[in-house]
Amino acid sequence: MAVKRKIINDPVYGFITINDPLIFDIISHPYYQRLRRIHQMALAFLVYPGAVHTRLHHSLGAYHLMCLAVTELKAKGTVITEEEEIAVKAGILLHDVGHGPFSHALENRLVTGIHHEQISLQIMQAMNEELKGRLNTAIAIFTDNYPKRFLHQLISGQLDVDRMDYLTRDSFFTGVSEGVIGYDRIIKMLVVHEGELMVEEKGIYSIEKFLVARRQMYWQVYLHKTVLSAEKMLVHILERVRVLSATGITDLKTGGATDFFLYNYSYNSQMDRDTLDKFCQLDDVDFSFAIKRWSHHPDRVLSQLCSRLLNRQLLKIKLQAEPFNESMVQEKLQQAATELGISQEEAAYFVFTGEANNTMYRVQDERINILFKDGSVKDISAIDNPLIHQTISAPIKKFYICSFR
Amino acid sequence: MAVKRKIINDPVYGFITINDPLIFDIISHPYYQRLRRIHQMALAFLVYPGAVHTRLHHSLGAYHLMCLAVTELKAKGTVITEEEEIAVKAGILLHDVGHGPFSHALENRLVTGIHHEQISLQIMQAMNEELKGRLNTAIAIFTDNYPKRFLHQLISGQLDVDRMDYLTRDSFFTGVSEGVIGYDRIIKMLVVHEGELMVEEKGIYSIEKFLVARRQMYWQVYLHKTVLSAEKMLVHILERVRVLSATGITDLKTGGATDFFLYNYSYNSQMDRDTLDKFCQLDDVDFSFAIKRWSHHPDRVLSQLCSRLLNRQLLKIKLQAEPFNESMVQEKLQQAATELGISQEEAAYFVFTGEANNTMYRVQDERINILFKDGSVKDISAIDNPLIHQTISAPIKKFYICSFR
Amino acid sequence: MAVKRKIINDPVYGFITINDPLIFDIISHPYYQRLRRIHQMALAFLVYPGAVHTRLHHSLGAYHLMCLAVTELKAKGTVITEEEEIAVKAGILLHDVGHGPFSHALENRLVTGIHHEQISLQIMQAMNEELKGRLNTAIAIFTDNYPKRFLHQLISGQLDVDRMDYLTRDSFFTGVSEGVIGYDRIIKMLVVHEGELMVEEKGIYSIEKFLVARRQMYWQVYLHKTVLSAEKMLVHILERVRVLSATGITDLKTGGATDFFLYNYSYNSQMDRDTLDKFCQLDDVDFSFAIKRWSHHPDRVLSQLCSRLLNRQLLKIKLQAEPFNESMVQEKLQQAATELGISQEEAAYFVFTGEANNTMYRVQDERINILFKDGSVKDISAIDNPLIHQTISAPIKKFYICSFR
Amino acid sequence: MAVKRKIINDPVYGFITINDPLIFDIISHPYYQRLRRIHQMALAFLVYPGAVHTRLHHSLGAYHLMCLAVTELKAKGTVITEEEEIAVKAGILLHDVGHGPFSHALENRLVTGIHHEQISLQIMQAMNEELKGRLNTAIAIFTDNYPKRFLHQLISGQLDVDRMDYLTRDSFFTGVSEGVIGYDRIIKMLVVHEGELMVEEKGIYSIEKFLVARRQMYWQVYLHKTVLSAEKMLVHILERVRVLSATGITDLKTGGATDFFLYNYSYNSQMDRDTLDKFCQLDDVDFSFAIKRWSHHPDRVLSQLCSRLLNRQLLKIKLQAEPFNESMVQEKLQQAATELGISQEEAAYFVFTGEANNTMYRVQDERINILFKDGSVKDISAIDNPLIHQTISAPIKKFYICSFR
Repeated sequence: MAVKRKIINDPVYGFITINDPLIFDIISHPYYQRLRRIHQMALAFLVYPGAVHTRLHHSLGAYHLMCLAVTELKAKGTVITEEEEIAVKAGILLHDVGHGPFSHALENRLVTGIHHEQISLQIMQAMNEELKGRLNTAIAIFTDNYPKRFLHQLISGQLDVDRMDYLTRDSFFTGVSEGVIGYDRIIKMLVVHEGELMVEEKGIYSIEKFLVARRQMYWQVYLHKTVLSAEKMLVHILERVRVLSATGITDLKTGGATDFFLYNYSYNSQMDRDTLDKFCQLDDVDFSFAIKRWSHHPDRVLSQLCSRLLNRQLLKIKLQAEPFNESMVQEKLQQAATELGISQEEAAYFVFTGEANNTMYRVQDERINILFKDGSVKDISAIDNPLIHQTISAPIKKFYICSFR
Repeated sequence: MAVKRKIINDPVYGFITINDPLIFDIISHPYYQRLRRIHQMALAFLVYPGAVHTRLHHSLGAYHLMCLAVTELKAKGTVITEEEEIAVKAGILLHDVGHGPFSHALENRLVTGIHHEQISLQIMQAMNEELKGRLNTAIAIFTDNYPKRFLHQLISGQLDVDRMDYLTRDSFFTGVSEGVIGYDRIIKMLVVHEGELMVEEKGIYSIEKFLVARRQMYWQVYLHKTVLSAEKMLVHILERVRVLSATGITDLKTGGATDFFLYNYSYNSQMDRDTLDKFCQLDDVDFSFAIKRWSHHPDRVLSQLCSRLLNRQLLKIKLQAEPFNESMVQEKLQQAATELGISQEEAAYFVFTGEANNTMYRVQDERINILFKDGSVKDISAIDNPLIHQTISAPIKKFYICSFR
Repeated sequence: MAVKRKIINDPVYGFITINDPLIFDIISHPYYQRLRRIHQMALAFLVYPGAVHTRLHHSLGAYHLMCLAVTELKAKGTVITEEEEIAVKAGILLHDVGHGPFSHALENRLVTGIHHEQISLQIMQAMNEELKGRLNTAIAIFTDNYPKRFLHQLISGQLDVDRMDYLTRDSFFTGVSEGVIGYDRIIKMLVVHEGELMVEEKGIYSIEKFLVARRQMYWQVYLHKTVLSAEKMLVHILERVRVLSATGITDLKTGGATDFFLYNYSYNSQMDRDTLDKFCQLDDVDFSFAIKRWSHHPDRVLSQLCSRLLNRQLLKIKLQAEPFNESMVQEKLQQAATELGISQEEAAYFVFTGEANNTMYRVQDERINILFKDGSVKDISAIDNPLIHQTISAPIKKFYICSFR
Repeated sequence: MAVKRKIINDPVYGFITINDPLIFDIISHPYYQRLRRIHQMALAFLVYPGAVHTRLHHSLGAYHLMCLAVTELKAKGTVITEEEEIAVKAGILLHDVGHGPFSHALENRLVTGIHHEQISLQIMQAMNEELKGRLNTAIAIFTDNYPKRFLHQLISGQLDVDRMDYLTRDSFFTGVSEGVIGYDRIIKMLVVHEGELMVEEKGIYSIEKFLVARRQMYWQVYLHKTVLSAEKMLVHILERVRVLSATGITDLKTGGATDFFLYNYSYNSQMDRDTLDKFCQLDDVDFSFAIKRWSHHPDRVLSQLCSRLLNRQLLKIKLQAEPFNESMVQEKLQQAATELGISQEEAAYFVFTGEANNTMYRVQDERINILFKDGSVKDISAIDNPLIHQTISAPIKKFYICSFR
């Protein structure tokens, strides 16, 4: 019997193999295809022109690493049934399906009060109905309600295939070689011990490399000051549109689901099915289009923000270790107001301060368990390795100021 | 005196250096920034998920190869003045600035009667006015009106840096390793002899590789049957919209420049300045947005084409060496009409035949001159190399049929 | 139960995994370790400084590709028992164990009348005795005496993992990107049909690429004229030493197995066990050392050949499509005799002609079977693909002349 | 006028260009060609099978990086005359020419009392005589007696092209991706300020990466315990041979320069010309050959050490942070003596302890100057970057024990 089999070219890993009916069904679903229209790295392409890869591509890559990890663990004697194998692959494919336009740049901004992982879950549940329960195990694993906890940890944990792929892929497409991790070596070092995912002792240097690479990606890429400036402009556009709309201005609408979420949606931690459908019609295209339209809007604040973002005439930005002097901020506000012919209140869309940190990436849980040759287990923070300590404990936080000049 | 200098990360070449005021002015111009919003490979990303790179990225890459080529030729004693050097770099940066939405997939479809290279020229001329003549030499080189012809040949010829970059870059982002050319070796083999760009004798195997790689890219990527199917659907969407519009249906408009070119523009080989401005507001975003909108349009033909393209439910396609049997086509047309509940005439949007060939890529001029050690020059077709002959002469043409089932 | 498992870093494939006791036993055997001291590409490093990789590295690489191929075929439903799997891996590891110093450059020169594959077999048989029959199946597969023929074809056939590795590896270490083949794609396209190894229809472009890459490697690397010159000098050194020895000159000996094979060994298609042991003591080190010693030998022909090879002062060489003019050869012979103060007969060590072709690489059998979607099988030469025809049929043969000036 | 020009394929950098007569003369000199026969990484190939690259390849690579660095600095306005440019390239080409067999593994063991850099200088001086003073400037730069100090710093300093190449190259050939540094980015960040070589402020993350990568290479590669064991065995072989020779045993000689340095040479900080000539005849081949011969020597200690090294049956080795317990060492000594049938004194060749640290690599001088945008200069240790502090200050030192079982 011939199994249907497809290979997809991936510049990062070479080839990705699809060979299961459930995986095919997920990939061909419109909810999944929508991820083609969401940039993995939001506006980072304004600094790194190659960083235009999509959420779909990332989730396919994470799926590929999951295939490798499962093969490796099985070769080491860990029991993973066929059902579990397909479920954990389905789970990783869908882990990001709840991302909205411009991913983390607008996280909690467009749809408030609900994290993208919760939306992913709701979408999985909706798909599960259509698929007549074929995602049951995948959902149990995704929500950490499955007995074999290591399966969940492969999807979401300190060393999950999600971050292995995004570091590898983001590093690849930006061309920032400093972010390269040895994903293949890390995967070969994974082991399941007492039901938990761990790393073999001899993998410590790969973990060291992984942590350093991640740190480099934060500073060079994810928190790159120019990217930060662009993403703050995007947030300010959203805020301005909502303020204008609240004052009754109606010519902002561009049609479709965008209008719903911008002007009609109110906070709700659980979406009803109809709202979920609307959410699944949203992607970067809607917002990119709206920004083009609003760049001609009569409101000077809105049109300036939009046309500047569009043409990459970004706000000046400066980063430093200490907060900025308030009087300097006031001065710059005044300048902007004068120059743009707007009120000082409006000038605050162009001149503002804040903190850059890595809260948009999960770092709450730095626990990586190391399994030693003698069978003992130590948390990585208990390992005698100064570089790892440094990487884990060093704060990733800076103050920024954006300004018109 | 410190020269302003910027380096841009490029996953393909490592780093691209910008160090001239004119180059900075071009890159920061909105007309150039627009290229960020045009996919280099139109809809190829539906088959190759990594192929989402942009025209801007390609033209930066071609600029980088131009820098290498100029350095190499100067090291070999060819005289290139500083003015010429900057001009030829400006020329290559702008060579594709006249591309419209989805590049070659809609070439001559949205804006008819004018090739993108002519539009590039018109845009360069418009920019030249703003820049007070600083593009004069670049334009002369671009239009082949400059005495040192090899400068034009570096921009546009059989071995220009344009195609060296697009083959390299498209191969990189698709992950199709068969398309890798040895661009660095080819550039090292370039030489100017009697004012013309040539290749040194010992570069013949690199040329052989180049031609074979290009052929592989045609068949595996540019003319990939699934890509072909998607691009034909895109063209049919455009046609349907125009037909509907001609019958007076008005709810098709999405606003902005798209509407102008879809419904108000008539053939003209020369755009006036106002039209040119409108053209420069068009990009893939407008069309992607329109397709999303039209996927809900009451016209069944239009909505089906759009939603299917959006969700990657593409028309079935088959390629073969001979034309398809007409009765088989009729049968499939009938099936589609029945199944979709439309007229047979309308079914022709879903069932149709055609020829796939490489006319969208310039192949008219296969002349590459080889400079032999003894000083003689031979055209590549006169070289005793069977593989090169085969690659040049083998027809790249097949017949296809697209159908609903 | 913990299986002993080792991963080896390989710059070409990343990591190579060893996880079977038999494979460990083979790799740690002195006969296998000897391959560390035999260059994979003989003297090619004189042109490509990176090409210093060893036969051991190549055979490890081929073993890795065998692991991939077996995994792939099993995923497609081909039955391969655990015993067969280990046997075919053992077979590929040992396929080159019979190579002598400088591999093919001295093939049939040092040990005459017996091909390295026959010696490989004899060594495998000797090891099999030590290993108490654990290589029985491997030997049956290696000698094509095993019912499942495709296992033999994976070791030795048109698309075996041996040549996939050597093309990939030689291309990698020389830095000749033209020789890159898509080994991963080819392996994914392999299929077993009616007991024979075949390639799926959609793999045709990968085969095309493979054949073109191989052709490029012949001309750019394996038959590179400078490499050819160096290897002919090596052969002439051997010949001169034997001539001198035959005249009773005794100060040539450097000790050990080299002396045996240079001066005491006579043709025999089967080595006795003692001779085999001696053979297994020979490697590149012995010959490299001897050449250093002979570079000080009183015989002018010998010392000149050796010191020139040592210091990369190689004979001039010219390649052309037609045989060289005899009178020109005579003239150069005369010049060399005069210049070096030797007889014209002796000058023939420095001035000579010959044919360069690819007989040192197996090309006798170009049969690659393609399995079409409809279940039919065609030989590749029957496929409608002009590039493949050209690549297969184009003769790889040129005439060369080496000379002193 | 045609300048002679040659390009060399390098798997690491692509192509290396040679285009100056002096550089050609150096490369074709037998003293330089000798570097082909010295492994860059001594016995590391016993762990990393790809690590068989040579000193010649490394010095060509460092030359290539020097070309890049010079081009970059000149583009930034630093004045470097043509004479200086060629001299600094000649200097880097020859910086390692004084390495003896197995480079650092036998540093100060075979030729005692003189560091390889001093021998490099003496060889440069000898070549300078032959070349009639064309190396004068190169020698002045190499010995830091040239006014423009940054030229010397490019050859020998914290961020010289020597270590940029060896980290890059060793990482490449071992396949240890953790050692990859961003050499191209570092070179682009180099700048000359007040005559000294510095790094621009925005290069700090590249330096961080460089330091971490170097640390990873120490632990994973240069101080890999198995490599350490092999190199200690090599040193013990040398010691045993000398002890045996001192007792009058004469059948150890293998001929040539090896014999001179093993048995006739006594300490001298300056070699006379004749000794230098002999030194330049030594390479890895001589020692590899001798080890093969000695593996059959009647002395049990010598033959065991040699045959075990030859067949990769290395001494067991253990690393730990504290010194080893003396009674345990004594016990292992006793065991080895019994098992091998040798005296306890002789057993010390097989059982011994020591310290592994990085003294074989220059780390004395961690000073890297950073040039800030405001024109100030800070030493890297004064920079607020915890990871850099950690990397610089963390001791690289461990205790090891080698033993027979």
